[in-house]
Amino acid sequence: MTIKDIARLAGVSVSTVSRVLNDHPDVSEIAKEKVLAVVDEYNYIPNTSARELGKSSSDNIGVVVRGMSNPFYTKIITAIGDRIEKAGYTMVMQQIGTEDDEVITAAKMERDKRLLGIIFLGGRLNYTKDQMTSINVPYVCCTFYNEYGNLDRSDYSSVSIDDNQSAYNAVETLYNRGHRKIAVLLSGAKDGSVSQVRYEGYARALKDFGIPIDEKLIIEIDSYSIADAYTGMKKWLKQNLDFTAVFAISDNMAMGAMKALRECGKKVPEDVSVIAIDGIEASEYMNPVLSTLCQPMEKMGIEAVKLLVDIIRDKNIHRHVILPTSLREGESLK
Amino acid sequence: MTIKDIARLAGVSVSTVSRVLNDHPDVSEIAKEKVLAVVDEYNYIPNTSARELGKSSSDNIGVVVRGMSNPFYTKIITAIGDRIEKAGYTMVMQQIGTEDDEVITAAKMERDKRLLGIIFLGGRLNYTKDQMTSINVPYVCCTFYNEYGNLDRSDYSSVSIDDNQSAYNAVETLYNRGHRKIAVLLSGAKDGSVSQVRYEGYARALKDFGIPIDEKLIIEIDSYSIADAYTGMKKWLKQNLDFTAVFAISDNMAMGAMKALRECGKKVPEDVSVIAIDGIEASEYMNPVLSTLCQPMEKMGIEAVKLLVDIIRDKNIHRHVILPTSLREGESLK
Repeated sequence: MTIKDIARLAGVSVSTVSRVLNDHPDVSEIAKEKVLAVVDEYNYIPNTSARELGKSSSDNIGVVVRGMSNPFYTKIITAIGDRIEKAGYTMVMQQIGTEDDEVITAAKMERDKRLLGIIFLGGRLNYTKDQMTSINVPYVCCTFYNEYGNLDRSDYSSVSIDDNQSAYNAVETLYNRGHRKIAVLLSGAKDGSVSQVRYEGYARALKDFGIPIDEKLIIEIDSYSIADAYTGMKKWLKQNLDFTAVFAISDNMAMGAMKALRECGKKVPEDVSVIAIDGIEASEYMNPVLSTLCQPMEKMGIEAVKLLVDIIRDKNIHRHVILPTSLREGESLK
Repeated sequence: MTIKDIARLAGVSVSTVSRVLNDHPDVSEIAKEKVLAVVDEYNYIPNTSARELGKSSSDNIGVVVRGMSNPFYTKIITAIGDRIEKAGYTMVMQQIGTEDDEVITAAKMERDKRLLGIIFLGGRLNYTKDQMTSINVPYVCCTFYNEYGNLDRSDYSSVSIDDNQSAYNAVETLYNRGHRKIAVLLSGAKDGSVSQVRYEGYARALKDFGIPIDEKLIIEIDSYSIADAYTGMKKWLKQNLDFTAVFAISDNMAMGAMKALRECGKKVPEDVSVIAIDGIEASEYMNPVLSTLCQPMEKMGIEAVKLLVDIIRDKNIHRHVILPTSLREGESLK
């Protein structure tokens, strides 16, 4: 998207757009409103980095990490950094909070750092075509995909697990061990994040096993943090509901939940079984050891770089890679 | 260090050095040996990135992370990335294993990525002046300092805790609760890393409290990994030695040790008390919660960038910042 496009869409001249973007006083309020409406709608990010303009080329690949504090990303980032370097490029990483917008961050990076391509590590699953017009280089979604948006599969690449099926498998594991009252600990059931897909896998499994969904057993914490999972679980436990198992959508959240359960006098796995998805190292050193479906973290990072470099070099078609998970039998299941 | 310096040190002409470095056949074996000896001794890294030569400038700050899998670094990296971006520079991060040499990596990065400065996140404490001639931009040691090398304090910056005193405080905490047979779990007692400094703090405390050092209670694992701490501790426990407490030099290692203790039937804290240094989030969700001396991770990252940017911008003098630790009372002490 250029300022010419904005001028066309706003029905004003290019010089008017330029004056608005540069906060020039000599512009009518009406023209200004029209321009800003278009800028807003298309998430247009002006190039602010004058210092970089002199560069004729770059070998930068941008990596936008959403929710850096998630230890699940550490191994993926290591693999991504290693492979970008080996392929002869430079990794330029930016970390944003889960409340920030990774597309706006990436669009700004694309211009300021003259990126050749972008890897999104974590992000929303509902990108729209309009939103993505602000990105003009190839990009790969790592750990997610456009489940709830309207992108064409030929317009982006992705590498991930099958989140819906993995959640299904987790619930099935609990069901097979006799559990019928299975709570789910998640960020949100309709938040457009990977939390929603995993919730849908949970709901699909319950339906297949003939168990009606009990809204009271859905624990939403609006976050992926271990601390929020801990406090959210503690609060939920005060209701004293009847349940025998928890499916937490991430290891981190399971770790927070297990501390809450312990402090409320519930023993894992004697009183409550816990299962999650991720397979981070720390959860293997919990007491009890967390049972979880492990994602192939290193492989995901390697694959993300491979997908992007293939496109940058050969202008190949975009691809979508689904990797398998494997159950790590811990001590948190009865 | 330039090829002129190499020519002078090797006693050959500049064109001979150039021929050797470019693997040109027209050079005598004797001259070649002389040049390579100098290259080797000074860790000279030729600029290999032809693609970058066209660039007239860069705003890159290099961050070399040694031992990326250490969760202790995650929060520091987040703070460093955020502050570099806010200061108007670009973070170029490279991660290496603990067995790799961060100085060689940084020297190569300095040339390939045209760095303005470098932050070492983790590294050896025994850099020599000769080794550091390969670095021609200002650098900051983050989480360590030149305890065992011969650098002038005016030649580099650092931000860290007082590792010797923190280890002393950890042992004092155990001593004050009645412990006299205190094992130490570390990477190495003489490995030139932060492990050695913390060991020296441990030894100094025991001496002050009139407890002779028992070599059998020194558990060296040659690594900082949680998995190696676990297996090392398990192996050590087979000797069935008499001890009531463990000072682990990192949270990660304490987590590995606690799993080993549990599997060997030793209860924490009833049978064995455990204390560590770091304060990572995961150790707060252990069962029992780990008691540890917390490092101000975010502040360390912020301070590292501040030190470097001050020097890049104002050519200010190098500074050395020591930050305090604070005891997080967990459940692992009796």
